[in-house]
Amino acid sequence: MLQIGDTYSEVFSYTQDQVISFAELSGDKNPLHLDAEYAATTMFKKPIIHGILGASILSKILGMYFPGEGTIYLKQEIDFKRPMYVDCKYEAQLTVLEINKDRHTAIIETKIVDKESGKVNVLGNAHIMHKEKI
Amino acid sequence: MLQIGDTYSEVFSYTQDQVISFAELSGDKNPLHLDAEYAATTMFKKPIIHGILGASILSKILGMYFPGEGTIYLKQEIDFKRPMYVDCKYEAQLTVLEINKDRHTAIIETKIVDKESGKVNVLGNAHIMHKEKI
Repeated sequence: MLQIGDTYSEVFSYTQDQVISFAELSGDKNPLHLDAEYAATTMFKKPIIHGILGASILSKILGMYFPGEGTIYLKQEIDFKRPMYVDCKYEAQLTVLEINKDRHTAIIETKIVDKESGKVNVLGNAHIMHKEKI
Repeated sequence: MLQIGDTYSEVFSYTQDQVISFAELSGDKNPLHLDAEYAATTMFKKPIIHGILGASILSKILGMYFPGEGTIYLKQEIDFKRPMYVDCKYEAQLTVLEINKDRHTAIIETKIVDKESGKVNVLGNAHIMHKEKI
């Protein structure tokens, strides 16, 4: 059973190929994600990962491991605080903040930090339901 | 220039192949999205689209059309109110709620409704920055 204070973390990175795949899948072909020359003219200097692709690791962790199969995603607040780049190591850090046993729901803090600097790239809360594990 | 009250809408749907691609890309292979037999045992009765994949249409619209190239995604709050299914027609409806010209930021209501029933599947706000169009 998921408890308040439980944590889960996972180190991950995305490749340029994965960014291209997400651009194809979503239709978001904003050159900021795909075109190094264009990105060089922006404040980011190089192509950045789509925010929603960056957030996909949260879907994976919640759906597969923490709490895993059977998770129903109710809500996600997500603050894209710093850009994420391809081939950089990030760590997703999840912490259970609130549990409602009657409704089988939980609020989980979802954070993505740069593995090297520790700076926060993504911050927000996921609201989920799980009939067996909450 | 983006103005308060401006709207944009787009009809879309996702196929099972796109759901499989997103499962591969994100690593979220929760059987609720992929396995019809498993999904039949749940309250959803058939496989549902990953919430984050459903939200990807918002990334596309903001990054490509409304306001388009140059959009920087700052924040997204997203409430997955009803499940989304493959091959169903949905409409993404965006409305500009707030503009901050000094910061070049806007808050845009992001809604996804079932094209047939009009029921709301996804509801939330996107916070974006665009140096030229806001």
